[in-house]
Amino acid sequence: MIRVGILGYGNLGRGVEYAIAQATDMELVAVFTRRAPETLKIVTPDVSVVSINDVALWNDKIDVMILCGGSATDLPLQTPEMAKLFHVVDSFDTHAKIPEHFANVDAVAKEASKVAMISVGWDPGLFSLNRLYASAILPEGKDYTFWGKGVSQGHSDAVRRIPGVKNAKQYTIPVDDALEKVRSGINPELSTREKHRRECFVVLEEGADAKAVENAIVTMPNYFADYDTTVHFIDDVEFAKNHSGMAHGGKVIRAGKTGENGKNTHVIEYSIKLDSNPEFTASVLVAYARAAVRLSQEGVFGCKTVFDIPPAYLSTKSGVELRKELL
Amino acid sequence: MIRVGILGYGNLGRGVEYAIAQATDMELVAVFTRRAPETLKIVTPDVSVVSINDVALWNDKIDVMILCGGSATDLPLQTPEMAKLFHVVDSFDTHAKIPEHFANVDAVAKEASKVAMISVGWDPGLFSLNRLYASAILPEGKDYTFWGKGVSQGHSDAVRRIPGVKNAKQYTIPVDDALEKVRSGINPELSTREKHRRECFVVLEEGADAKAVENAIVTMPNYFADYDTTVHFIDDVEFAKNHSGMAHGGKVIRAGKTGENGKNTHVIEYSIKLDSNPEFTASVLVAYARAAVRLSQEGVFGCKTVFDIPPAYLSTKSGVELRKELL
Repeated sequence: MIRVGILGYGNLGRGVEYAIAQATDMELVAVFTRRAPETLKIVTPDVSVVSINDVALWNDKIDVMILCGGSATDLPLQTPEMAKLFHVVDSFDTHAKIPEHFANVDAVAKEASKVAMISVGWDPGLFSLNRLYASAILPEGKDYTFWGKGVSQGHSDAVRRIPGVKNAKQYTIPVDDALEKVRSGINPELSTREKHRRECFVVLEEGADAKAVENAIVTMPNYFADYDTTVHFIDDVEFAKNHSGMAHGGKVIRAGKTGENGKNTHVIEYSIKLDSNPEFTASVLVAYARAAVRLSQEGVFGCKTVFDIPPAYLSTKSGVELRKELL
Repeated sequence: MIRVGILGYGNLGRGVEYAIAQATDMELVAVFTRRAPETLKIVTPDVSVVSINDVALWNDKIDVMILCGGSATDLPLQTPEMAKLFHVVDSFDTHAKIPEHFANVDAVAKEASKVAMISVGWDPGLFSLNRLYASAILPEGKDYTFWGKGVSQGHSDAVRRIPGVKNAKQYTIPVDDALEKVRSGINPELSTREKHRRECFVVLEEGADAKAVENAIVTMPNYFADYDTTVHFIDDVEFAKNHSGMAHGGKVIRAGKTGENGKNTHVIEYSIKLDSNPEFTASVLVAYARAAVRLSQEGVFGCKTVFDIPPAYLSTKSGVELRKELL
């Protein structure tokens, strides 16, 4: 059994806990937290909840630590720190800072003879894999990534900061017409506005000016000004009933040409539809935790991404079983 | 530059030739054939066409040989034979015989210190990868593979063997209702008839009995009896105009559950739509030829499948580029 630790117990950490329960080759050993351990109620019975301050004591009791902190401030520090002690997996998703994060983690992991998998999830993660596979197979082509329909936390936060807004949820939605154009294989040039639209559900403070709030949203630079945005005003009851979920999804589509003068077009589409973004991300993290342990058993160390992992390492099945059942 | 040879020059071999022309890190060195070399007209100028009998003389001039023969009789013999001399890639697609083929090829390749990639293409190949990734991530779920719309060579041949049939093409088509059920995440039980339907376009010999031919098709055991089959009778002109293409496609869909009592459902769908089945398969072969050479440079030998290959090995880009541009 692979002995797994979880660091950080928000939605992602709890999702990892559920995913480990589905993994026949893994057991959850401990959950580490910055909070007072006795205040944390976790799902699995008889699993230790431990202060982050004591994490080093668990060095020989855990085969892989799954890091469930945020990309903005937690992971840039935690992943290198933890990679001194454990094989680790994180979901660092600030695309522009991945090279820097990789370099920081790689140095520590090599020094400590650990495997550190970074940027695991669906984007970066499964979507990255599909961009890579599709572009390697169809080099003369173009790929498109669409996100949604799903909640953008950053955009929801931006709306909530507007005076007069009590609560808000923002959905990112691919534009149907853009999807159809891309699927047709014509490799269109698409502006930001043409690819995605935004939909906001807003609960106003009492006495707030709906027109002013709507205007503040749709003209907000970076967040909304470049998009077609629809704003709906709803009450607390409807908000709680219809907008508390964490559904998400998206697509990676690549069209490319082959043959004589590129006369033949091929379209590859990878699409996911998720009831729970954190639980799905957690399931990807757990599969790559298995791969991290396998790599370490081969004596391979350092920072790795999904690009470096042979797919077979993600599965509980043997090579013989995989070839017989899935190939 | 990776020096590539092609063995066998039908539709697949010609597709490989076009795909190599798109690969900036590869050059086609020679095409090997069982035919008289001087009778073979290939696309690329200044490339040798060589008799298969002289293949051993090219041992040190070729880094990887792409085998473009058929799975029924060519590859079971050719792949082990060629793996004595070269790193090889084949598209062996008789699913039930993959374990046997793997064992035969593995023994030879290890003995000769060669990398032999087998069963590369889209199914087996990319579809297998998607079955593996999706099942590793969503272990409590079920996957479905749909083929088409596309031509089944075996079924077309079966129709052509019916007395009175001059020419025929058979299309395998996923049933829309089945696709919708699977995409909804309910993991339905689907019979053979419920998953795919079959459509035949038939040119009759003069004086043939259309009713009798139609009956012979739709009641044919194994091939058609378990399916809803539509038969269209057309003339030579329409056949040549509308049914000479090699379009194909298909989907791998997996739905799985996560979280508390499996309350959340996630659906992963991988879908391809191809203008030319052989050219697309060829493009996959060429990407894995690159991977075979990279593996050999690491001193890894033996028989491998798509499950064993780190995705990064398929790309011409470096790890730094991949992380920056695609992750």
